[in-house]
Amino acid sequence: MHAAFDPARSLLLTDLYELTMLDAYRRESMEAAASFEFFVRKLPPCRNFLVAAGLAQVVEFLETARFTEEELGWLARTGRFAPETIERLRAFRFTGDVDAMPEGTVFFADEPVLRVTAPLPEAQLVESRLINLLHFQILIASKAARMVLAAPGKILLDFGLRRAHGAEAGLLAARASYLAGFTGTATVPAEALFGIPIYGTMAHSFVQAFGSEREAFEAFARSRPKSLILLIDTYDTEAAARLVVEMAPELAAHGTPVAGVRIDSGDLAAHARAVRAILDAGGLREVKIFASGGLDEQLLARHRAEGVPIDGYGIGTSLTTSTDWPALDCAYKLVAYAGEPRRKRSEGKATWPGAKQVWRRRANGRMEGDRLGLAEERQEGEPLLVPVMRGGKRVGPLPSLAEARARCARELEALPEPLRRLEPAQPPYPVEPTEALRALAAACDRRQRERAGGGP
Amino acid sequence: MHAAFDPARSLLLTDLYELTMLDAYRRESMEAAASFEFFVRKLPPCRNFLVAAGLAQVVEFLETARFTEEELGWLARTGRFAPETIERLRAFRFTGDVDAMPEGTVFFADEPVLRVTAPLPEAQLVESRLINLLHFQILIASKAARMVLAAPGKILLDFGLRRAHGAEAGLLAARASYLAGFTGTATVPAEALFGIPIYGTMAHSFVQAFGSEREAFEAFARSRPKSLILLIDTYDTEAAARLVVEMAPELAAHGTPVAGVRIDSGDLAAHARAVRAILDAGGLREVKIFASGGLDEQLLARHRAEGVPIDGYGIGTSLTTSTDWPALDCAYKLVAYAGEPRRKRSEGKATWPGAKQVWRRRANGRMEGDRLGLAEERQEGEPLLVPVMRGGKRVGPLPSLAEARARCARELEALPEPLRRLEPAQPPYPVEPTEALRALAAACDRRQRERAGGGP
Repeated sequence: MHAAFDPARSLLLTDLYELTMLDAYRRESMEAAASFEFFVRKLPPCRNFLVAAGLAQVVEFLETARFTEEELGWLARTGRFAPETIERLRAFRFTGDVDAMPEGTVFFADEPVLRVTAPLPEAQLVESRLINLLHFQILIASKAARMVLAAPGKILLDFGLRRAHGAEAGLLAARASYLAGFTGTATVPAEALFGIPIYGTMAHSFVQAFGSEREAFEAFARSRPKSLILLIDTYDTEAAARLVVEMAPELAAHGTPVAGVRIDSGDLAAHARAVRAILDAGGLREVKIFASGGLDEQLLARHRAEGVPIDGYGIGTSLTTSTDWPALDCAYKLVAYAGEPRRKRSEGKATWPGAKQVWRRRANGRMEGDRLGLAEERQEGEPLLVPVMRGGKRVGPLPSLAEARARCARELEALPEPLRRLEPAQPPYPVEPTEALRALAAACDRRQRERAGGGP
Repeated sequence: MHAAFDPARSLLLTDLYELTMLDAYRRESMEAAASFEFFVRKLPPCRNFLVAAGLAQVVEFLETARFTEEELGWLARTGRFAPETIERLRAFRFTGDVDAMPEGTVFFADEPVLRVTAPLPEAQLVESRLINLLHFQILIASKAARMVLAAPGKILLDFGLRRAHGAEAGLLAARASYLAGFTGTATVPAEALFGIPIYGTMAHSFVQAFGSEREAFEAFARSRPKSLILLIDTYDTEAAARLVVEMAPELAAHGTPVAGVRIDSGDLAAHARAVRAILDAGGLREVKIFASGGLDEQLLARHRAEGVPIDGYGIGTSLTTSTDWPALDCAYKLVAYAGEPRRKRSEGKATWPGAKQVWRRRANGRMEGDRLGLAEERQEGEPLLVPVMRGGKRVGPLPSLAEARARCARELEALPEPLRRLEPAQPPYPVEPTEALRALAAACDRRQRERAGGGP
């Protein structure tokens, strides 16, 4: 296939079984409406809550999902599928409904974040990429939210493109972390595509390329007169801080005040204290200290507790790969087909049947507890899933990224206090299935037992 | 910017500081040749070796790296860069040299996997994406190699697209794991793009969509007559295995012999033993058992030690996110500029100066030890870095993926026995810097001290 193939935009980016199942559904004329729900089975022990993210990319994917002629030609040549199946794939358009939690909503285990209702082959075929898109942004937004809670008032920047798992991960990690409250990112196209503020200074190689730190700093000042941030740990951090104090008056006289310094190695807290003292003694009280290198939310919390004088953090690997827990136990499961609720019984992986809704109760602005019930029920509290697409088209404009970010900030504010901490909250947040949902699950089990027993 | 932006193909997918540095280099006319080396600073405690991978994607990136007019227009509108810098970016082509270890080569901490020598702005600008591409495939190939060593003779399939971090990660994880010895993947475009065998059966939703397992199995058999693999854990694994035994004669009579069954939940070892007994007693000794769900190399090794009758494994999350260690401490560092070796001294992050080579000694087919020295030295053993690009063009065709896979298999075969185990090898594999390299590092430090001390 052609080298210009873009996996992020191709419906071919799927698991083979999605195509073999579609092939069988076509043969069996199984085109009735199916509902699938995306949810997380279990929260990681190191997460008290998760943050919904990625819906904008899912909607874009569903609206544009189709096979190219080149892809269809290749699929036909593999000999795996009947010509009628290739035709079915050629005609593929997503015509279904989507209900989902708005991006930035806090959610918990077993709660559906998104529901697709569409003819069975459609709802099934989009599974792999839909999970791939939702899982990653939820993972990163949830990790970033912990950092935001651990470092209130600090500038937090995503520096993680290089260690992110591929191009799309780098770009979407910038989006997900901004949504969760980060200040910005170093990843350039995040500004072009999503309007996220971008930040950047210099690398060690810049300092090394010059004969001395002084020459490097002077050259950078000529190029970046408006916001000069100098990297000071290439050779000796404190010596470089003294050099900054020495150079600052002349730089300021040329219209280039030093805005900040960055430290990227060693004991960041100790260096920050020493550098702060040097800068303050040199009259540079307004110069900010940025730190980067090996940071995570635990270190942010420790710095806060110890009053470490760091104004902003560039966070890479731990953010964009969610190092402590790099994948969530999530699924996209059939909950109803042809008007009948369905339930998987596999050990440790049983699912709640039927199209569901989540209602959240609040008191004094704080979240009190969630009810997980059937979509057609009426329950007290705010229903979290809202209509997003009907008949393959969005029902209205999605909230902007800024709105999703504001929603997430409100949600973090409304978290019960124990959930805002980095340690596991005991007891965890209460999510209770309704009686109607329990009854339906029991009825599904009875029906399945009868069918298994009564098979011919 | 336009929604069709493909981050995987855009030179704009970079950290902002790469552009601000280029801006400064242009102003200072610093266009002399620079050498940067990519290496891993430290092996994770749970890795005895790493596998080089991703070079093919890096070369493709370097050959095609340029800015589109749309990207340049956007950059200009941000007001961050002088018009001359936008012109410099418009003219950007990679004209440099690349030396690298062929894909599939085993390597260790501090060893350069790849060296770029190019005019400083070029060598710098490609940094972020080059690390992003190399890091991920090395991460996954190294993880996959552990699974290959833990499960000799087993069919190993990548099932990890949905939990991979984005589209590119899903696709390149299929490539990296195949390179390391996996049998194939479920990710469809991996066959179209890379010729990797793809595999797939059915999901639980397929079984659930039918009235009973029997109906689901019959429908799937009509659609997949050539290689029928049935998922048997949707409701009750052993009951479904008995159903397979019951259905097999009729299916075979219709020309659709059952090729295998898949188990995806519960205690896989216990289920596999029970299912094997049911199948064997039912005369289905040739039917293979596949397992998936929550697998990693530790479980593969335990299954092997206990003789669990599983023929093939579908491995998802732990493979495509390298769950136990989802990022490597890697870097792309300036080692020479304008003919002069450079060295970063930052605490815990000091680098070896100068363009380097790695020589590997072998005895009786096994790897004995590596020497890390200067590229111009002559040392005993096989030099691992070979010329890949000269003047921006590849010196010849890269090894095919099949060749890289064969090389990796030979490398794993040649590993010292303790390194082939999952536990940390003690002592680790010996990598010794040459005397010339040590002397150069000391000379760099002396020069740096003199310059810092002698500054005006």
